[in-house]
Amino acid sequence: DTSLVDKSVNTIRFLAIDAVEKANSGHPGLPMGCAPMGHVLYDEVMRYNPKNPYWFNRDRFVLSAGHGCMLHYALLHLAGYDSVKEEDLKQFRQWGSKTPGHPENFETPGIEVTTGPLGQGIANAGIANEACSLAGHWGLGKLIAFYDDNHISIDGDTEIAFTESVDKRFEALGWHIIWVKNGNTGYDEIRAAIQEAKSVTDKPTLIKVTTTIGFGSPNKANSYSVHGAALGAKEVDATRQNLGWPHEPFHVPEDVKKHWSRHTPEGAALEAEWNAKFAAYEKKYAEDAAELKSIADGVLPAGWEKALPTYTPEIPADATRNLSQACLNALAPVLPGLIGGSADLASSNMTLMKMFGDFQKKTPEERNVRFGVREHGMGAICNGIALHSPGFIPYCATFFVFTDYMRGAMRISALSEAGVIYVMTHDSIGLGEDGPTHQPIEHLASFRAMPNILMLRPADGNETAGAYKVAVESRKRPSVLALSRQKLPNLPGTSIKGVAKGGYTISDNSSGNKPDVILIGTGSELEIAEKAADELRKDGKAVRVVSFVSWELFDEQSDDYKESVLPAKVTARVSIEAGTTFGWEKIVGSKGKAIGIDKFGASAPAGKIYKEYGITKEAVIAAANEVC
Amino acid sequence: DTSLVDKSVNTIRFLAIDAVEKANSGHPGLPMGCAPMGHVLYDEVMRYNPKNPYWFNRDRFVLSAGHGCMLHYALLHLAGYDSVKEEDLKQFRQWGSKTPGHPENFETPGIEVTTGPLGQGIANAGIANEACSLAGHWGLGKLIAFYDDNHISIDGDTEIAFTESVDKRFEALGWHIIWVKNGNTGYDEIRAAIQEAKSVTDKPTLIKVTTTIGFGSPNKANSYSVHGAALGAKEVDATRQNLGWPHEPFHVPEDVKKHWSRHTPEGAALEAEWNAKFAAYEKKYAEDAAELKSIADGVLPAGWEKALPTYTPEIPADATRNLSQACLNALAPVLPGLIGGSADLASSNMTLMKMFGDFQKKTPEERNVRFGVREHGMGAICNGIALHSPGFIPYCATFFVFTDYMRGAMRISALSEAGVIYVMTHDSIGLGEDGPTHQPIEHLASFRAMPNILMLRPADGNETAGAYKVAVESRKRPSVLALSRQKLPNLPGTSIKGVAKGGYTISDNSSGNKPDVILIGTGSELEIAEKAADELRKDGKAVRVVSFVSWELFDEQSDDYKESVLPAKVTARVSIEAGTTFGWEKIVGSKGKAIGIDKFGASAPAGKIYKEYGITKEAVIAAANEVC
Ligand SMILES: [Ca+2]
Ligand SMILES: [Ca+2]
Repeated sequence: DTSLVDKSVNTIRFLAIDAVEKANSGHPGLPMGCAPMGHVLYDEVMRYNPKNPYWFNRDRFVLSAGHGCMLHYALLHLAGYDSVKEEDLKQFRQWGSKTPGHPENFETPGIEVTTGPLGQGIANAGIANEACSLAGHWGLGKLIAFYDDNHISIDGDTEIAFTESVDKRFEALGWHIIWVKNGNTGYDEIRAAIQEAKSVTDKPTLIKVTTTIGFGSPNKANSYSVHGAALGAKEVDATRQNLGWPHEPFHVPEDVKKHWSRHTPEGAALEAEWNAKFAAYEKKYAEDAAELKSIADGVLPAGWEKALPTYTPEIPADATRNLSQACLNALAPVLPGLIGGSADLASSNMTLMKMFGDFQKKTPEERNVRFGVREHGMGAICNGIALHSPGFIPYCATFFVFTDYMRGAMRISALSEAGVIYVMTHDSIGLGEDGPTHQPIEHLASFRAMPNILMLRPADGNETAGAYKVAVESRKRPSVLALSRQKLPNLPGTSIKGVAKGGYTISDNSSGNKPDVILIGTGSELEIAEKAADELRKDGKAVRVVSFVSWELFDEQSDDYKESVLPAKVTARVSIEAGTTFGWEKIVGSKGKAIGIDKFGASAPAGKIYKEYGITKEAVIAAANEVC
Repeated sequence: DTSLVDKSVNTIRFLAIDAVEKANSGHPGLPMGCAPMGHVLYDEVMRYNPKNPYWFNRDRFVLSAGHGCMLHYALLHLAGYDSVKEEDLKQFRQWGSKTPGHPENFETPGIEVTTGPLGQGIANAGIANEACSLAGHWGLGKLIAFYDDNHISIDGDTEIAFTESVDKRFEALGWHIIWVKNGNTGYDEIRAAIQEAKSVTDKPTLIKVTTTIGFGSPNKANSYSVHGAALGAKEVDATRQNLGWPHEPFHVPEDVKKHWSRHTPEGAALEAEWNAKFAAYEKKYAEDAAELKSIADGVLPAGWEKALPTYTPEIPADATRNLSQACLNALAPVLPGLIGGSADLASSNMTLMKMFGDFQKKTPEERNVRFGVREHGMGAICNGIALHSPGFIPYCATFFVFTDYMRGAMRISALSEAGVIYVMTHDSIGLGEDGPTHQPIEHLASFRAMPNILMLRPADGNETAGAYKVAVESRKRPSVLALSRQKLPNLPGTSIKGVAKGGYTISDNSSGNKPDVILIGTGSELEIAEKAADELRKDGKAVRVVSFVSWELFDEQSDDYKESVLPAKVTARVSIEAGTTFGWEKIVGSKGKAIGIDKFGASAPAGKIYKEYGITKEAVIAAANEVC
C-alpha cells in the first residue's frame, strides 16, 4: 500500500522536524532525505525484536552520520522500542533524555554504537577508507552500506573539496556497488537494491542513494541551511503544506501506528524461532553452543584468571611486550571471546595467539586479526566487536605513540563503554634508535586524563598478568597497556593483586608508616626506583618503593588504603617515569620531585638516551636526598 | 653510461647496508630496492643546490616511508650536502648525529619534513587518502608520488591485509597513473615515467614502481627479514659478492664521486639563474616581489601586530570563535603568508578571510582553503605549507574535540617546528546539545602535556588578539587556540600583553602581594572567576583573579614574575576550567581546589550542563571559602 508507505515516511520526516523544532537545535535535513530508506529498512527488511534490543541474532543498524539521529529515534519509536516513547522524542537534546543530540549506545537501547563524530560518514573520512578496505579484503557479504549522496556539505556543495568518484573508489576496495537514483520517492528502487545487495554474499555492498537533503521543505531543501538548524515555524508550516501533513506536532496517524504495531509480535516470534533453533543446536553441539552462549551473554568462564602466569625474581628478565604475549597465549584457550591483532606490527607488538591461524575471508573461524597499517580503522573495528556482544574481548596493538592515529576510536571506546584492550608496545625512549617520532612522551598523561579509560603501565611479569586480569574484567571500560620493548627484571614484591589497587608498596624498610622518603615508579622505571632504594637504604634511609601502575585504579581505592601507601605526612616523595612530568604534582605534592621527560625524545641506543635525559638511579638518589 | 649508473646505484645500496650494519639497527630493505629511483631523481631529475638546502625554488623530495632514510642520507651525501658527510653516515642512529633513525627536518638540512611515523606511506594509511584526494581535487600537476610496490609488509606479504587495487583507487581520486614494472634495474623505464609525469600538468601522478625489497641480498631479498634489521656480516658479504662490490664499508668509488661532484657547481648555477630571474621580476613588479620575498624569508612585515583589534568592557559580549574571525580578517591584508581554512566547518569555526576567495584548481591565488572532512590530512597539509617557506603562516580549523583525528599531524607540527595555527572552536561543554562526542574534556591537558606546542585558551576579545599575536610570532612552535561557541563578555583587565606572559592578574583588591585567595580561570570560565571574586570582595575578602591563558608561556617567565602572580605563600587558590582537573594540582597546590570536569559531557542546553556539572560562580565561592 504505497499511500500508507508515503504516510509512514512523512510521519518519520515530521517526527524529526518537530523534535528539532521543539529543541530549537538539531539536524532535520538528513532525516527528511533518508526517511524512505529508513522506512524500508525498519519496516520491511530488518529482523529485530523491539522488546529485546539485545537479542543476539538481530540485524544491526548503524547511523554513521550520527547528527541525523532523529531519523533513528523516529524509527525506533515507530518500531515499538520502549526506549523511545513520544515523551522521549519531545525531550530531544535535553538533559537526561533518551534522545541525545548524537546517538549514544549507553543511553538508548536500540542504538548499537555511538557515532557522533564521524562527520560525513563513510564517504570521505580517512578512517572509513581504512575500515572499508578491510571489509572488502575480508569479503564481508553481510555488510550493506547506504551512502546518502546529497551533494551538500556543511560548507556548501561538496564540489568545493570533494570531486573524487566514490563508486570507483569503493569498487577498487572490492565492494559491490549499486546506485539508487531516486532515494526521495523510489521505494521499489530501494527495495530492489537491498535485495541485490543481499544476493551478493562474498562482497560488501555500497548502495549509493541519491537524495535531496531536507526533502519536502519548499525553501530550504537541497541547501546547507537545512543541515544543522531547526527549520523555523514558518518553514515548518510551508513543509506541512507542501507534503500534505495537516497534523499537530509529533502526530502518528492511527493507520501508521497500526501498521508498525505488528513488529512487536513479529519480533518476539523471530526471537522465539531463533531460540528454538539454538536449543536444537545446543543439544547436538553442546561444547560449541556453550562457547557461543558465553560470547552472547558475556559471562566469563569460571576460573579463567587461573590461566594467567606468575613470576619470581629468579625468572630471567624479559620485555613486557613478550610477557604480554605470554598472557595472550595463556588466555586464548580459556576465553572464547578473545580476538585481536596488530596494525602490521604483530612481530613487534608480540600479539599472535599461537594456537590460532589468521582471521581471513576463507578462515573466519580463526582469531588472529591482521589489520594492516590502519590504526584508526583497527580501533573502530574493535569497538564494533566489543559492542556486538558482551562476551567478545577484542584487543588491538601498535606502538604506543601511534595511539595518536587512533585516539578518536579510543575515546569512543571510553565513551561508549567498549571494553577494548589496547596493547601498546614500545612505550618510551626505551625503544631507542627509531627516535622521537616513535617515542611517546605525553601519551601516558593524555590517557590518564581521558575519562573512563584505564591507563596501565606494568613493570614486569606479575604486573603484566595483573594488567590483563584488570583489562579482561573491565568489560565496560577500555584498558591501555603500555609495554616495553626492552627487557625488565622480575621484581620482588610485584603482584597481580597489587595491580588491581593501581598503586601499592613493593618494598619498604620503614616502620610505623613513616618512611623517610617514598620512591614512586611505573613500568620500566620501577626497576630504577628499586635500585635507588637499595643504595639509599645502605645509607641508612627508610625507603618505601611504590609501583604506580594505574592512577585511575588507585584513585578508586579507599582513603585508608591510599593513606597506607602514600601517607599524607610523608611529603618527601620522588617519582620517576620516562614520560612527561605533567600531572605528577598530584602524586608527589609540591614538596616532592618528579623525574621525567618534558621534551621530545632522540635517536640513539636506549641506554644512552636514558643517561642523557637523566632517567637514572643517580638522579633518583640525588632527588631523594634533596627532598628528605 | 650505464655501468657508472649501476656503480652509483650500488654505492647507494652499500652506504645504506654499511650504515645499518655499523649501527646494528635500521632498515636496509627499502634503500636496496629504491636506490635506482633515488639515483635517477637526485642525479638526473631534481633541481637543487647542495650548498644552500633552503634555496626557495628547489625541487622538494619527501621520503614518506621515513624508516628508509639511509636512502635519503646516501643521496644527500653523494649530492654534496654538507649536512651528511662520511662521518655522519658512520654515526647513523647515534646520539647527537645528523643521521637519526627517521628523517628529521630540524636535524638535517636537506630533509624537508619529518616523516617517521607514516608507516607504509601513501598506499594505505587513511591520512594519505585524505591528502591524496585533495591533491587530485586541486589538480596538483607538480606533485609526483613514487609508490614502492614491493608486496612486503612488516607482518609478511601485504596480501594478508591489503588486496585493494591501489592504481584504481588513485585513478578514482583523479590522479594520473604510471606503472614501472622493473624498478630494480629499469633505469630507462623510470626516466620515461618521470618524463611522462612531468608532461601531465593538470593532475598529480602516481608512479607505481615494482621493486624487490632488499634487492641484491641473495638470501633475504623479497622477505620481511630485510625490512627492519641489519643484514648481518655473513649476508652483507654474500650481497657484496652477488652485486660485485669488493669495496670496504662506506666506500664511494672515485668515478662515482667525480660524477656526482658536478651537482655543486650546477646547483650554484641553478640558484644564480633563478636569482637573476627574480631580480628582473622585482624590477618589474616590486610589490608582488616584496610579497613573495617575505614568504621566502619569513620576515614579518613591520608593525603587522598593529592590525590586531583591541576591546573594552563596553563592547558587547561575543564568542571567541567570532573574535578569532575578526583577528584573521584584520591580519589577512598585512600578512601575505596567512593561508588556511577549515575541515568543512568554516561557518562554525568562523575562519573565512572575507577579502579572499577559495583556493581551488582554477584560483590558486586565493587563500581560503576548503579541506573537506579531512582533519588529519588538513594538519599534514598545513605542516607542509609551514615547512615549505618560513613566511607561510598556515592555519586550520575544526571543533576542538576533533583534534583527536589530527593529533598525529599536530605532534609532527610540534616535533618538526612547524608554526601551524590550530583554530579549535567549540572548546567545551559550552557547545551544548551536540553532546559528549563533541565536547572536549581532556584535550586542554593533553596539549599542555605535549612538548613544543602552545595551548592557548583566550577569554575575550583582547585575549583572542593576544593569542593571535603569540601564534603568528611563534614560527617554530605550533599554537592551539581553544575558542568558545558561546558568547563571552569583554573583561576589564585583559590584554594582549598579558597573554604573552601566559598567566597574569586581571583584577585584584589585595595589597602587598598577599591576597586572601587567588581565583584562576581560563577561557570561558574566567568570567565565572571574576563574578565569584566580585561577591567574595563584597564579603570583605582580598581576591586576586588570574587569567591562565597559556601554561607553557607562564612556565617560561622569570621566577620573580611568577611569584608576583602566584606568590608561594598564598596557598589558598581555586581554579575553574570546563575541562579535566588533571594537571591543575601544579597550579593550585595541594591546599588549593581545582574545579573542573573529570567525566564525559552531556547533550543538553549549555547553561544546564554548566549548572549540573558544577561549573558555576557558586562552586567557586564555596571552594574559596573552604580554602581560605
Ligand atoms: Ca583515564
Ligand atoms: Ca604543550
